[in-house]
Amino acid sequence: MVVESARARTLSHVEPAEVPLQVALDALADPVRRSILRDLATHDEWTRACGTFDLPVKKATASHHFAVLRSAGLIEQRDEGARRLNRLRRPEFDKSFPGLLAATVDRED
Amino acid sequence: MVVESARARTLSHVEPAEVPLQVALDALADPVRRSILRDLATHDEWTRACGTFDLPVKKATASHHFAVLRSAGLIEQRDEGARRLNRLRRPEFDKSFPGLLAATVDRED
Repeated sequence: MVVESARARTLSHVEPAEVPLQVALDALADPVRRSILRDLATHDEWTRACGTFDLPVKKATASHHFAVLRSAGLIEQRDEGARRLNRLRRPEFDKSFPGLLAATVDRED
Repeated sequence: MVVESARARTLSHVEPAEVPLQVALDALADPVRRSILRDLATHDEWTRACGTFDLPVKKATASHHFAVLRSAGLIEQRDEGARRLNRLRRPEFDKSFPGLLAATVDRED
């Protein structure tokens, strides 16, 4: 029997192929969200937990940023014990938005 | 003697090299502004006057969108009689933001 926590059940994801360009651009047009994506782009998948990012915002705001990135098909998240792990959805996002991560995340602000 | 109109004097431009990524993304993250850029991308330079764009907004709002595009180094404007002509600053913007126009303007929303 699989027992899901309420927390895990609320984790909804959106496929990059279903994301409008406007939603992708809105997600990328924020410096905190770009810093999260750059962090993920330079670490192995599923090695970065939400709590370990060094962000200049409160926890609730950080949670909002992660949710926006998930809704834009930019990240995937899964809970592992008390930690919420992340991966950048690079290949699938690149397929739907060729060149967009390269032009925004693979460079400095 | 060169007599400039007040209108022409207020036309300030920003070089793409001076534009932060945040400003470029904010300018591109609007569907009306992307439609202006797509129009310019598919016409010869300096052939499109502001009044000739088919935009779903009032004139004052349209003027604001053109000003935002100018401030982000995306378009160049010049007055010719009563017309304000436009060009997409493609080569210089591409140099500062490689791939960004390709990923946002050279595709559908």
